[in-house]
Amino acid sequence: MLDTTVAVQANNVLNRLDEALTQNDIEAALGLFAAECYWRDMLAFTWNIKTAEGKHGIRDMLSHCLEYTQPHSWALDERESVTETGGVIEAWIVFETAVARGTGFVRIKDGLIWTLLTTMDELKGYEEPMGVTRPLGAKHGDDQGKPTWKEEREQELASLGVDTQPYVLIIGGGQGGIALGARLRQLGVPALIIEKNDRPGDSWRKRYKSLCLHDPVWYDHLPYIKFPRNWPVFAPKDKIGDWLEMYARVMELNYWGATEARRASYDEATQTWTVVVDRDGEQITLRPRQLVLATGMSAKPNVPSIEGQDIFGGIQQHSSEHPGPDGMAGKKVAVIGSNNSAHDICAALAENGVDVTMIQRSSTHISRSESLMKYALGPLYSEEALANGITTEKADMLFASIPYALLADFQKPIFDEIRKVDADFYDQLEKAGFMLDFGPDDSGLFMKYLRRASGYYIDVGASQMIIDGRIKLESGSEVARLTKNSVQLEDGREIPADVVIYATGYGSMNGWAADLISQDVADKVGKVWGLGSDTPKDPGPWEGEQRNMWKPTHQESLWFHGGNLAQSRFYSHFLALQLKARMEGIDTPVYGQQPVHHTS
Amino acid sequence: MLDTTVAVQANNVLNRLDEALTQNDIEAALGLFAAECYWRDMLAFTWNIKTAEGKHGIRDMLSHCLEYTQPHSWALDERESVTETGGVIEAWIVFETAVARGTGFVRIKDGLIWTLLTTMDELKGYEEPMGVTRPLGAKHGDDQGKPTWKEEREQELASLGVDTQPYVLIIGGGQGGIALGARLRQLGVPALIIEKNDRPGDSWRKRYKSLCLHDPVWYDHLPYIKFPRNWPVFAPKDKIGDWLEMYARVMELNYWGATEARRASYDEATQTWTVVVDRDGEQITLRPRQLVLATGMSAKPNVPSIEGQDIFGGIQQHSSEHPGPDGMAGKKVAVIGSNNSAHDICAALAENGVDVTMIQRSSTHISRSESLMKYALGPLYSEEALANGITTEKADMLFASIPYALLADFQKPIFDEIRKVDADFYDQLEKAGFMLDFGPDDSGLFMKYLRRASGYYIDVGASQMIIDGRIKLESGSEVARLTKNSVQLEDGREIPADVVIYATGYGSMNGWAADLISQDVADKVGKVWGLGSDTPKDPGPWEGEQRNMWKPTHQESLWFHGGNLAQSRFYSHFLALQLKARMEGIDTPVYGQQPVHHTS
Repeated sequence: MLDTTVAVQANNVLNRLDEALTQNDIEAALGLFAAECYWRDMLAFTWNIKTAEGKHGIRDMLSHCLEYTQPHSWALDERESVTETGGVIEAWIVFETAVARGTGFVRIKDGLIWTLLTTMDELKGYEEPMGVTRPLGAKHGDDQGKPTWKEEREQELASLGVDTQPYVLIIGGGQGGIALGARLRQLGVPALIIEKNDRPGDSWRKRYKSLCLHDPVWYDHLPYIKFPRNWPVFAPKDKIGDWLEMYARVMELNYWGATEARRASYDEATQTWTVVVDRDGEQITLRPRQLVLATGMSAKPNVPSIEGQDIFGGIQQHSSEHPGPDGMAGKKVAVIGSNNSAHDICAALAENGVDVTMIQRSSTHISRSESLMKYALGPLYSEEALANGITTEKADMLFASIPYALLADFQKPIFDEIRKVDADFYDQLEKAGFMLDFGPDDSGLFMKYLRRASGYYIDVGASQMIIDGRIKLESGSEVARLTKNSVQLEDGREIPADVVIYATGYGSMNGWAADLISQDVADKVGKVWGLGSDTPKDPGPWEGEQRNMWKPTHQESLWFHGGNLAQSRFYSHFLALQLKARMEGIDTPVYGQQPVHHTS
Repeated sequence: MLDTTVAVQANNVLNRLDEALTQNDIEAALGLFAAECYWRDMLAFTWNIKTAEGKHGIRDMLSHCLEYTQPHSWALDERESVTETGGVIEAWIVFETAVARGTGFVRIKDGLIWTLLTTMDELKGYEEPMGVTRPLGAKHGDDQGKPTWKEEREQELASLGVDTQPYVLIIGGGQGGIALGARLRQLGVPALIIEKNDRPGDSWRKRYKSLCLHDPVWYDHLPYIKFPRNWPVFAPKDKIGDWLEMYARVMELNYWGATEARRASYDEATQTWTVVVDRDGEQITLRPRQLVLATGMSAKPNVPSIEGQDIFGGIQQHSSEHPGPDGMAGKKVAVIGSNNSAHDICAALAENGVDVTMIQRSSTHISRSESLMKYALGPLYSEEALANGITTEKADMLFASIPYALLADFQKPIFDEIRKVDADFYDQLEKAGFMLDFGPDDSGLFMKYLRRASGYYIDVGASQMIIDGRIKLESGSEVARLTKNSVQLEDGREIPADVVIYATGYGSMNGWAADLISQDVADKVGKVWGLGSDTPKDPGPWEGEQRNMWKPTHQESLWFHGGNLAQSRFYSHFLALQLKARMEGIDTPVYGQQPVHHTS
């Protein structure tokens, strides 16, 4: 039900915004915003993913974008209710621009816009065929003699990358590449995914054997095909692997397994990439117009350089290479690091009776999985949320509607609550010597993920094993060196070890560009991920959006795509629209591209 | 919105039914039914699929079933509206029995029940884990060292049928076996599917190459995972094949491809089947408790015996063996038959320039695909239906709520309308010599399907090719004989032919039981499919439900499952519940099993 009062208020603001923008009256539009205000835009105005902060920011954005955007037909989304909580009116909106249809979300305080989200949904004339516009499939009448679906598909698979060139080459066939590939196929953009592993899903299958998703199912859906209602809350890695493999198949993705990109270069004159790949031993040169690095946040292993690595007599492996506890019986294992992988690996080893020590070099945020689901994700991604009408798609928009500048404020109370309800648990963990934090500003896990993609563990049992001493813990000191059979810490402690596992995380994705293209291009593009929050591993200045992700970079026609399943789902939509627009020759003036402040 | 008046009326009837049944007062219950009345029950009362017709039928059913069923808590389904059209109140209902929860649908005329559908949804204590009760997936805490999902799955695949026996053996791994296998897995019933083709989906892949589904996508969903919104209206056979293959994988079915059942026998004493199978060359003996023949309505080819088949010099093939037009160039092809396959095969041949003649021996119903979708399926299975809140699951229940005795009356006006709007089309077709019918009582396509599963073509273009003479037509006579190079009709016409394709349909599924078990068992079970409508190929007497499908047969622990995707979806639920109840030792007294009137 619409509450008439708040709906009328929201409608009034929208109508006045519509009028001001239609008349190109930027000052009148600004008059509708509160003193503290944010306008987050996904493509609709900026052909960028950009948050304009404050009236000065919005003025600048509109003065660049308004004329060619030609926004109009702002209205409340009739499918949704307008609500009011604590003096803030929240409303779902729809609008159009010269080239697209969009949806958004607005928060109004005291009659003025506090936050505004505008997202591009579809390009006019290039809508995805679905529902009533879905393809017929069968060939009727005179088309019955034409090539069948199977013949066409086989022809496409045989020729793409050989006789014909993909418009988009996606390097990396994990969830990121797969979700993007599915979107592009629906938009009719010829795309090829290459993946170094043999089969879709192998990037999950090859991880340590106890790995399960740390995010619950409601947060993990891919576009187009949802996990069924009997799907586990935290899918085991091989099950996710199978799902990705079947998804790539039924979504008809052009997917080359066992294929590695060797080198790439961009020709400014022809606006074409030359990418040399090794496909199962055969060298092939591809010439796509657009290149997407979907190689993953967690694919460029970060192994620290430590004195004595050359003399250590046992096994050394990065967490990404660690298969699990099989074959570790009787060995002493030291795991350097204290994030998700470190905890999972230690727990599986300890459960299998292996003598394992976690070396915690710096403080770590821990959230119990149950608490995270209940307090942090539950309101948006859960059975309860679904029962309240909050589908995954709506949840994505609600989460996106909070500008990153405010997100820490929104998150802090959630983690304050978690800290309170789990106080005993945290006490015991600290008594066991574990160095705990809730983020530099107590904003908890998600902000750590968005800022640095590290520094936390979602507890599914390892913390109790640390408390109980089943996982030994050595914390508070950096590693000084390895000896032939031990790890020595800077404070002099010595941990005997037959195996050293570096659960030391991953490097910035522009490292991929350095390897594949050149250091120059990697430096031109700069650091990938992070907000510029001036917190550990996310140096300032403030940038307001994740660096280089899903949006134009300083290297023409080079894109970065990745993140967890949720980000792969949500942002693949916007990346696909950007690529489609470029393929169709639609003008895509990019507003507000950030300068590069850091190269790694 | 509830219309209070009709909702109150429906509620009153339900309350009085609840009261009468709770007090075991059958006559009071009968007093709530109209003189013409039907109670269709799926398991809840009868542990059968059974329509009690008239007060005498309902009295008999209740007098046998009421005491042990203990129905109670009848109520309007709060999620749905009560509606009234043309004096008939329609309401969705919920109820419980001693062992189960159920839902249903009631039609009330003049305050009295006209039709009542009661279906069992779930067995108490054996609910499927989904939504809030879905499995956790990840192994937390002390379970972290236990076997992983992958290890457990590999162990199950290696041992089932070898070291351990499935409770249910499903012979046939098409959509029927796969849908049932998925339901059984969710209910925790150990099941094994065997399929003679190598891979799930091959039974579709191996058909003639132009084949697409004749039913639209909204009607075709499998349980648990819906086709995505970009899925074609009529999926090409190979695309459906891929979907079935991925579905079997992600639903974790135990599926043996390249496996044929050789013989089966039932031991009354141990209540166990002995089934000898050939698994890719290896002979294996399986000992399941329950045996399901899901070999398909369309899997036992019916090739007529015709004089001269031994002297014909060209190629003879049943439609199920016909690969498509490749390699037929320059040949003269005669297709005997005029149903779906005959039309599809002729159209693909004609499109490829092959000289093809359809030999129509008896009249055939034709519905144009567009008209069928608009007038017949549209109100229940379409984008429009979805927009009206009629999900596939609701549509299934609405369709099931019409007793078969009334269904022809419900269908006739639809096909009267189709005949009217497509009058020109039908005129042209008759002028081309095509013998047309709308069923013996003008009830159209669906009744033909339910009665005999033949006698119609859903037109996707072949009819126009007959009108245009691109497919030659010889109609009105039976085939007399084949010569070395022609087909001779009884009226003397002679059709030159290098190839004869028998598009002559399929035999009753109890033929499978004859081949696999014994003629005695096949005869004891009797004819499969059909309603006893006393119309061509569906001899009387009236039975009121499809013979032997998805319900107990006269052979203990032998079941038949099949039909189109829609029936595989809907009825697999009830067959799975029957098997689960038996596995768990729940008492399942079967009411109203029909005597066998026909053996084939």
